[in-house]
Amino acid sequence: MSIDIKSGHQAKSGINHIRLTSHKIDLPSVPQIKWGAQDPMERGPVVGTVSERENRNCIGSHSGSYTIYRALSIASGKFSPSHRPDLNNTEPTDSIEPQPSWFEPDRIISLDPWGANVARDFHSYLDQGYNIQPTIAVTQARLQLPEIREAMAAGRLQADEKFVTANGDVKVTKVAIDPVWHLPSVAKRFGLEESELRKILFKETGGMFPELVTRSDLKVLLPPIGSTTAYIFGDIKDLSNTDVELTCRVHDECNGSDVFGSDICTCRPYLTYGIEDAVRTAQRGGVGLIVYFRKEGRALGEVTKFLVYNARKRQKGGDSAATYFERTECVAGVQDARFQELMPDVLHLFGIKKIHNLHSMSNMKYDAIANSGIEVVNRLSIPPELIPDDAQVEIEAKKAAGYFTDGEVKSGETLENVKGRDLEE
Amino acid sequence: MSIDIKSGHQAKSGINHIRLTSHKIDLPSVPQIKWGAQDPMERGPVVGTVSERENRNCIGSHSGSYTIYRALSIASGKFSPSHRPDLNNTEPTDSIEPQPSWFEPDRIISLDPWGANVARDFHSYLDQGYNIQPTIAVTQARLQLPEIREAMAAGRLQADEKFVTANGDVKVTKVAIDPVWHLPSVAKRFGLEESELRKILFKETGGMFPELVTRSDLKVLLPPIGSTTAYIFGDIKDLSNTDVELTCRVHDECNGSDVFGSDICTCRPYLTYGIEDAVRTAQRGGVGLIVYFRKEGRALGEVTKFLVYNARKRQKGGDSAATYFERTECVAGVQDARFQELMPDVLHLFGIKKIHNLHSMSNMKYDAIANSGIEVVNRLSIPPELIPDDAQVEIEAKKAAGYFTDGEVKSGETLENVKGRDLEE
Repeated sequence: MSIDIKSGHQAKSGINHIRLTSHKIDLPSVPQIKWGAQDPMERGPVVGTVSERENRNCIGSHSGSYTIYRALSIASGKFSPSHRPDLNNTEPTDSIEPQPSWFEPDRIISLDPWGANVARDFHSYLDQGYNIQPTIAVTQARLQLPEIREAMAAGRLQADEKFVTANGDVKVTKVAIDPVWHLPSVAKRFGLEESELRKILFKETGGMFPELVTRSDLKVLLPPIGSTTAYIFGDIKDLSNTDVELTCRVHDECNGSDVFGSDICTCRPYLTYGIEDAVRTAQRGGVGLIVYFRKEGRALGEVTKFLVYNARKRQKGGDSAATYFERTECVAGVQDARFQELMPDVLHLFGIKKIHNLHSMSNMKYDAIANSGIEVVNRLSIPPELIPDDAQVEIEAKKAAGYFTDGEVKSGETLENVKGRDLEE
Repeated sequence: MSIDIKSGHQAKSGINHIRLTSHKIDLPSVPQIKWGAQDPMERGPVVGTVSERENRNCIGSHSGSYTIYRALSIASGKFSPSHRPDLNNTEPTDSIEPQPSWFEPDRIISLDPWGANVARDFHSYLDQGYNIQPTIAVTQARLQLPEIREAMAAGRLQADEKFVTANGDVKVTKVAIDPVWHLPSVAKRFGLEESELRKILFKETGGMFPELVTRSDLKVLLPPIGSTTAYIFGDIKDLSNTDVELTCRVHDECNGSDVFGSDICTCRPYLTYGIEDAVRTAQRGGVGLIVYFRKEGRALGEVTKFLVYNARKRQKGGDSAATYFERTECVAGVQDARFQELMPDVLHLFGIKKIHNLHSMSNMKYDAIANSGIEVVNRLSIPPELIPDDAQVEIEAKKAAGYFTDGEVKSGETLENVKGRDLEE
């Protein structure tokens, strides 16, 4: 399966010798990955470094899509291709302790639970000179959010100096998680043969990573997609304790609302209300968790999202809750590409078994969480006064499609009459 | 250069036949791309569709890194691989008119200026059945931002109903732009041979896209990285008019601050103050522009960023402005991977020749803009009262490193004494 070619016409020296794909080498130098093994040394480290190719045991490279910028850095001469990260002092501020969920077959398949403290768990490999990089980082921060200050001014939230200071600063532990996909388990979760998944991932991306099809011995992929961030209010260890009340929102990125406050959807209101309630839960002895997934525009991207906005606003009869999902499918080919099937992995990283308060309307999210074996006690929507006027189309369309609500579900003419603003307004 | 292999042991039918890389075919069916040509039909459309491979004239596929999710959609059976987008009603709400900058050699190299209105500019190709997808989308929106309401309450901004409503809604035109790289021009901008750039992009990403090295006839790459969004306050046509006052911020994503308000940096305060001033400029007859680049953590990603935060906070002597940049280089191998060299392309898309007010401290941004031939009249920092306490380390480190300031530049012991919070606080 190994193909070496000379590229270009004037291949004069070794520097022009390009290997289109790697080939399997059975050397003790390549750490084996035994996904789900209990002992980290038996599980083995994920070695995705590009600098020492001979030690790699996965497809792709670190930092998701930022690997392209790393390559540009090397092209520009600013970055040494042989750089090794100095991990001194970078270790997690809070430890994510191993959980039984780490060792259940096929429970965690899209991230590496051993990715946070590689200096502790794989020190003997590091001592031998392996270039092992963390795929998870844990730090502490303080958040200054106008919506938290508004909640305090409205009397919904009080300062306690432990979680919220008098001026509204919120103390938080945050965890950044890069994607690490165990391909056999991903295939299983989607009900596919592994070889079929590999072929589709290769072909339908325009030919990304030939090793997907040539290196069936490499079971792990570091895909060039965005990372995930978990924000924990309270003690990270309480997340796995079913006796401690847990308030949680799993939030998919929406840059237009999350950052710019666009009023066509309810994304930022749901996010900031989720934070507010997560903080309140910590204050009464519970723990709060917000997970932020980089899946802009239902993982279709912002260009597609804006095309859909235009098609929604311009269609005959105007933007209507009755045709909300249809327009996305016409333009994008699919209503949603977020694959909530992979989402609960991050909950299992923390050993979560019970969510007392889930802030989400989405049945896809709820089903994915429940199907992964986590009990959900209460499902919560945001208070109606926090929904922007133009976002009524989204909210009513979602309720009519079976999303969770404890209120009225509109249909027929009533649903058609839920209209958004025209483009000209 | 074409290599076909049989994958797996039991290749019984054509379905297991995988082509590791494509090969050049000289058929009239493949539209040629003549980058920089004045007539769109002479320039030719970028055809990145995966469904009809025979028509492709670029490497990679649409939607940046979301192409992975599209592939997963196909794997799950939810998406037809032969889906063709219905572009009806998706066309731009405001037209981005061709500018002289579109035709200057090597001026715009990382986006496709003809990517917005493909139904108008490439209708004859579409009529022939080519699957051409927009790489730019233009729509209109209203923003609801707490910081805008705060600016109104403080008397810094007034409602006028044209740009800002009484309840603080801001009217805006927004433009999403997917990356489209013309490889010969990118190589030239970085001072490299094209073949060298292609080899590095292939090798240092862990072998992404063999066509980078096998298909030197394909000059365009759709890289799996994030998109860029431009928010325009006022008339999009005024951006190219040097007589109209232009206020601009070019902003690199920082999810922790932009969305969650983390107080370790000044990202969201710079962004929202930039929006406020862009709106004020529109109100006095000018035009405002905010460009949002998906380059999280200096394009190193959030995992690296959090590792650096920990190393900064834990180093001997604590987090100090004097060692701010050094810690990033130790962990990441480079201080910054954002490549402001590519950033001005979006300014040239709109024909910008003069920026009256640039909201940025960054010399890298200023130099890139000035070196691309755009005049910058005033450089503006945010008012000191908008800088969070813990972000003083970042601000003073940047000033000491030569970033723009109209204030004092600290050095030596004074700089060392600018300290951030400990991790435990």
